[in-house]
Amino acid sequence: MATTGDNGDLLPGGICVLGLGLIGGSLVRALDSRTTTFGWSPSEGTRTAAAADGVDVLGDLDAALERADATGALTVLAGPVTSFPSVLRRIDAVAPTLALTDVASVKAPVETQVAELAPQARFVGSHPMAGTAQSGWAAGSADLFTDAAWVTTLTEDTDPADWAAVAAMALATGARVVPAEALAHDEAVARVSHLPHLLALVLAQVGAAGGTLALSLAASSFRDGTRVAGTRPELIRAMCETNRDSLLDAVDDALGILGVARGSLASTGSLAKLAEAGHAGRMRYDAGPGTLVPVTLQGADLIEQLLSIGAAGGHVTGVGAGAGGPVVRAHFPTDG
Amino acid sequence: MATTGDNGDLLPGGICVLGLGLIGGSLVRALDSRTTTFGWSPSEGTRTAAAADGVDVLGDLDAALERADATGALTVLAGPVTSFPSVLRRIDAVAPTLALTDVASVKAPVETQVAELAPQARFVGSHPMAGTAQSGWAAGSADLFTDAAWVTTLTEDTDPADWAAVAAMALATGARVVPAEALAHDEAVARVSHLPHLLALVLAQVGAAGGTLALSLAASSFRDGTRVAGTRPELIRAMCETNRDSLLDAVDDALGILGVARGSLASTGSLAKLAEAGHAGRMRYDAGPGTLVPVTLQGADLIEQLLSIGAAGGHVTGVGAGAGGPVVRAHFPTDG
Repeated sequence: MATTGDNGDLLPGGICVLGLGLIGGSLVRALDSRTTTFGWSPSEGTRTAAAADGVDVLGDLDAALERADATGALTVLAGPVTSFPSVLRRIDAVAPTLALTDVASVKAPVETQVAELAPQARFVGSHPMAGTAQSGWAAGSADLFTDAAWVTTLTEDTDPADWAAVAAMALATGARVVPAEALAHDEAVARVSHLPHLLALVLAQVGAAGGTLALSLAASSFRDGTRVAGTRPELIRAMCETNRDSLLDAVDDALGILGVARGSLASTGSLAKLAEAGHAGRMRYDAGPGTLVPVTLQGADLIEQLLSIGAAGGHVTGVGAGAGGPVVRAHFPTDG
Repeated sequence: MATTGDNGDLLPGGICVLGLGLIGGSLVRALDSRTTTFGWSPSEGTRTAAAADGVDVLGDLDAALERADATGALTVLAGPVTSFPSVLRRIDAVAPTLALTDVASVKAPVETQVAELAPQARFVGSHPMAGTAQSGWAAGSADLFTDAAWVTTLTEDTDPADWAAVAAMALATGARVVPAEALAHDEAVARVSHLPHLLALVLAQVGAAGGTLALSLAASSFRDGTRVAGTRPELIRAMCETNRDSLLDAVDDALGILGVARGSLASTGSLAKLAEAGHAGRMRYDAGPGTLVPVTLQGADLIEQLLSIGAAGGHVTGVGAGAGGPVVRAHFPTDG
């Protein structure tokens, strides 16, 4: 169990992926040689395309859930968040105690939905921090998750075995697993994923308002700064609007910092404070979490240990079976 | 005169580059095989490094200006904008009627400075839209300007022959030449170059404020959105603070758009307006100016014709000598 991505014998024998868009489709491809996978899609076009690429794909949701239940497969909610309530109701009706995860970009609202609509499911939320401006089955690839952070959410009630199955799946795709509480995840991604989308949209709009000359002079700072504004608007909305409370805090921070800089530029002509603080922020990002050392986690307070790893900037590199529950290998920052 | 970069016989027989940082150093390298170049730097370290790379470099500013005057070389202000007043005073004292350009990122303030401090100089402002987060002689490269937009500024008093010399130099580096009025340039770059830097600084600061977990979850949207925050703060300040008036307008637009989006998200939960308008802006940028057709410009209203080309998203591809003044080849958008 020495290498990243090692997941011992805890990788589920089957993975049922509900929704075969960019993320679900990439997941099926990434796990193809590692375990048995099968999928469900409500779209006939997607089913046809996925089947042509060799995927075992069903059009009947209940049949997919029954098969997951009968084979002990881990089921993954990989459709839009707006589809979750109806799917969760089918789970509660057909296979209420399924091992279940999701790959949505917000975690606290999903945790609440699952608790309400499929309360018996053995649920552990997750979120792979990977994507492209493209979407749909055709946009997926087996290496989408390679070296990406894959958040797995924990509560004090999480069964370590349920978490280990989700972690093993994520590790099998080549991702590094970051344990976190759902709300901490939502606050973090509001700042480093959702706010970047809003600022890209603002910049694209202000740039285009400058007209043809402005756009013809735009170079790499504008191109990079607006890249994610090329994502389909409905996907940006689905991601950002579902994380409203955390995103509002991040937007207020951005408005406050930009407003203060505006006042300073207007009154004194100086952007010193913004330039120094922003540069320091980027340098801190570039520096990363520092030197990582391997550690082994196990025991009754495993969940607490896992959350400490994630909060410090570390990540899980392997999971295996031990006498008293999962044994977890992780990388922990020495100065974390 | 069929290919981009063709500049007929109008490329000056000598180019004197004052300042050998990223832009000046790249200019010397790019022109090396095309015409005679020599440079000046106030920094002994820069002179030593440039000389070791084969550059004819002087440490005495007056001597460089006298040589430019005697040989009819085009002189390029390539140092920081803050150095311009002292250099312009030496020009006015030593070689007042020099052919002169600059490569600063703001144009109207420089035009004003030159008119005040070196009023007899045959000045045409310019700005290559190229750069990296690095700086200094060592960061330069001969291909920095390849396919970049290189703005050349025009007033109703510009002598077309002076403009053509600057355009020929820019074309010789592989850039496409965009004619514009100084203020129109400043308003455009505030939106597509300076505002991107401010938003990158804001995003880097908000992201870092999210702590270690947030930074460990940051993926490509944060990385791309904060890239230029890695530029040295003093370079960002020099660029943005000198374009204060136009930048304030762009910042106010950004604050207004983000503020309205914030209100909509808080009150109705919707980001539809921002998502649609921002996406449309990026799509317009991606679409570019449309199909370009070759045109030839010449005659008494050449300056007016050149400004029309730039405003429409076109660019100059070649300059040559004609009986009645410069003959200009350009690409003009068919739907511009």
